[in-house]
Amino acid sequence: MGASKAMLIVCDGLGDRPIDALGGRTPLKAAYKPNFDRLARRGISGIMDPIAPGIRPGSGPAHLAIFGYDPFQYYTGRGIFEALGVGMEVQKGDIVFRFNFASFDKEGRVIDRRAGRIREGTRELVKALGDIRIPGVELIFKEGIEHRGILAIRGSHLGWKVSDTDPQKDGLKALPCRPLDRTEESRRTAEIVNKIVDQALEILERHPINEARKAKGELPANGILIRGSSYYEEGPGLKERFGLVGACVAGGTLYKGVAKFVGMEVLEVKGATGTYGTDFRGKFEAAVKALEDHNFVFLHFKAPDLAGEDGDPLKKLEVIERIDKAISGIEELRDILIVVTADHSTPCALKTHSGDPVPIVLSGPGVRIDGTEGFDEFSASKGGLGRIRGLDLMPILADLLNLASKFGA
Amino acid sequence: MGASKAMLIVCDGLGDRPIDALGGRTPLKAAYKPNFDRLARRGISGIMDPIAPGIRPGSGPAHLAIFGYDPFQYYTGRGIFEALGVGMEVQKGDIVFRFNFASFDKEGRVIDRRAGRIREGTRELVKALGDIRIPGVELIFKEGIEHRGILAIRGSHLGWKVSDTDPQKDGLKALPCRPLDRTEESRRTAEIVNKIVDQALEILERHPINEARKAKGELPANGILIRGSSYYEEGPGLKERFGLVGACVAGGTLYKGVAKFVGMEVLEVKGATGTYGTDFRGKFEAAVKALEDHNFVFLHFKAPDLAGEDGDPLKKLEVIERIDKAISGIEELRDILIVVTADHSTPCALKTHSGDPVPIVLSGPGVRIDGTEGFDEFSASKGGLGRIRGLDLMPILADLLNLASKFGA
Repeated sequence: MGASKAMLIVCDGLGDRPIDALGGRTPLKAAYKPNFDRLARRGISGIMDPIAPGIRPGSGPAHLAIFGYDPFQYYTGRGIFEALGVGMEVQKGDIVFRFNFASFDKEGRVIDRRAGRIREGTRELVKALGDIRIPGVELIFKEGIEHRGILAIRGSHLGWKVSDTDPQKDGLKALPCRPLDRTEESRRTAEIVNKIVDQALEILERHPINEARKAKGELPANGILIRGSSYYEEGPGLKERFGLVGACVAGGTLYKGVAKFVGMEVLEVKGATGTYGTDFRGKFEAAVKALEDHNFVFLHFKAPDLAGEDGDPLKKLEVIERIDKAISGIEELRDILIVVTADHSTPCALKTHSGDPVPIVLSGPGVRIDGTEGFDEFSASKGGLGRIRGLDLMPILADLLNLASKFGA
Repeated sequence: MGASKAMLIVCDGLGDRPIDALGGRTPLKAAYKPNFDRLARRGISGIMDPIAPGIRPGSGPAHLAIFGYDPFQYYTGRGIFEALGVGMEVQKGDIVFRFNFASFDKEGRVIDRRAGRIREGTRELVKALGDIRIPGVELIFKEGIEHRGILAIRGSHLGWKVSDTDPQKDGLKALPCRPLDRTEESRRTAEIVNKIVDQALEILERHPINEARKAKGELPANGILIRGSSYYEEGPGLKERFGLVGACVAGGTLYKGVAKFVGMEVLEVKGATGTYGTDFRGKFEAAVKALEDHNFVFLHFKAPDLAGEDGDPLKKLEVIERIDKAISGIEELRDILIVVTADHSTPCALKTHSGDPVPIVLSGPGVRIDGTEGFDEFSASKGGLGRIRGLDLMPILADLLNLASKFGA
């Protein structure tokens, strides 16, 4: 009858390009990864364009696509996914941003876009921002990790197509928020954002937390930089669309947010940090446990992307080996469909996302085993799955779980 | 960091079907082509459907797709590309046709659709056509190569969905131009075309050039056959869309026209004729030189398509070998991404375009080398690139040049 449950392991930024220092291999090809290779030998491999061939995906749109949600329809900006990821309550129609606490000088220039990577006191600062009043709309602020936070603007006649105020570089003045289309709604949102930014400067400048930081010689968090404007509208969940009762094991806020957006339960796993220091094994064990009461578990590892963005092939190879080790025993999950893939490539030579396709392997009951010998970009490209797109994955997965409904008769 | 420039070599009509006389091989498979094969060994191969699987592309739509322009959106008819290819100035909204000078008898039957392949005097004949007057519209005529010419109708309330007057066969009367939809605009254009055709007959019949031709026993160019109705609207160029500053090295007018349409600089290369007798090596050298001040060079070879349309496998094999020889030394372009493909298959057995996919190879920095041993339809179908579409090529190419912008965050 095939598998009745599935585990999807996404290794962020896993794909790479040939690296001279690795003899023309990629970190994945060069790594010792007996567990991944065994999945390939017992499974079917292929390559996947998360969005479409050559398209460089951000992690948000890529994950949406992999979960079966067309990013051209469902992705507005990153704010909403960060909001959901930190557990903020949002409502249909909310305009949601992420923001940074930042340090400004007296002339309004940004001295540090992350306010000295402030770690403590942001809850109090966010509370103080709650004093900002803009007639006609409700404002909701929430602190995130370190210098990060979320802002939702709630009200009618609001548009989400507005620009960031973040100048992306220290030493520059913050940019005014501008409408990016010609609607009255976006113009109004931009005006509101600019008022929020101005009032935030006044409130934060004289806040005791910042007085204390300055007294200690630390950079004050005396302003905010706003970005990632987005619009929230709840879509049909994975349960409704594919019959999948999902659980998410991830460290990073964005991934939890996308998982929540598509209706998964986001599990809080101790030691899951989304950094090099994450508890790889603890996350895998939490994912295996989650299979008890979910038929779909999404397990996300961020570290390969970090190593790619650091431009460090040996670090990337090392974290791949650590992930492989962390999933030891995965072959014992005999009734489970295992899928391993990535949300995009992050070639070490580029230190950023590329549009290269990613390898994918499916292993488990019902899969047509294709004789692929290992799990890497080269072997996968000759696999029996061929070249698919991110949006193809959930239908294939649901079909292998015998959950797909028939098209016509 | 990968390649920063690319050369795209399109061998027109290169793909074929197995031929008994070649032991079941295609001309490409049977040819001695060490340079193409080396690109395959050092690159990644695949097959490409210029439009979509099984769709038989015209060369115009196929090239549009390969350059990243959806032919369903950008292709109206061939006229506009021929116009741009001969360097005619067109404006947004122009309705553009190509036409043939043809020989008509007294009963209005077409004796020769190409007016005895007239080579001289067409500039004077075109000048005489300038006397045609249709109230409310401006007419622009321009001579092309041999018996060919271009007509643009400029004015308001004009539609482009009208039929050809070319009966496609000698001995028949020219067809009236008819509207192909129910709009007033197309009806008006058809009426104008029919008036132009009538006035052209009067003007050309008594023209001294035709008097002289008749005196010499040559067929007169005493009428015109109109076809390829199209509409001109400038789209965003390759620079705007993909960051590509392009140059075109081609012989045929159509290819130059499509290149111009997408914003390339069309280079005039001595000896580039688009025929069997073209200077293959001269074109390649011009393309290499163009890489100095362009980051994208399109090099087009027409000869394989001519051999396919002639139904001559040995001729096709021979021109493939000549092209391969002409690109000798291409492996020395180490920092350049080289792409070799075709715009469509022209199987010798069919003597016309088919919908068979075409082989494609990408070779250069950053490419995931896939172990393919040679460049042909069979080997390419097993390559690491899998099966892509024409529209995928430019995003893949731009991504490998690190020019792609990221979708979301």
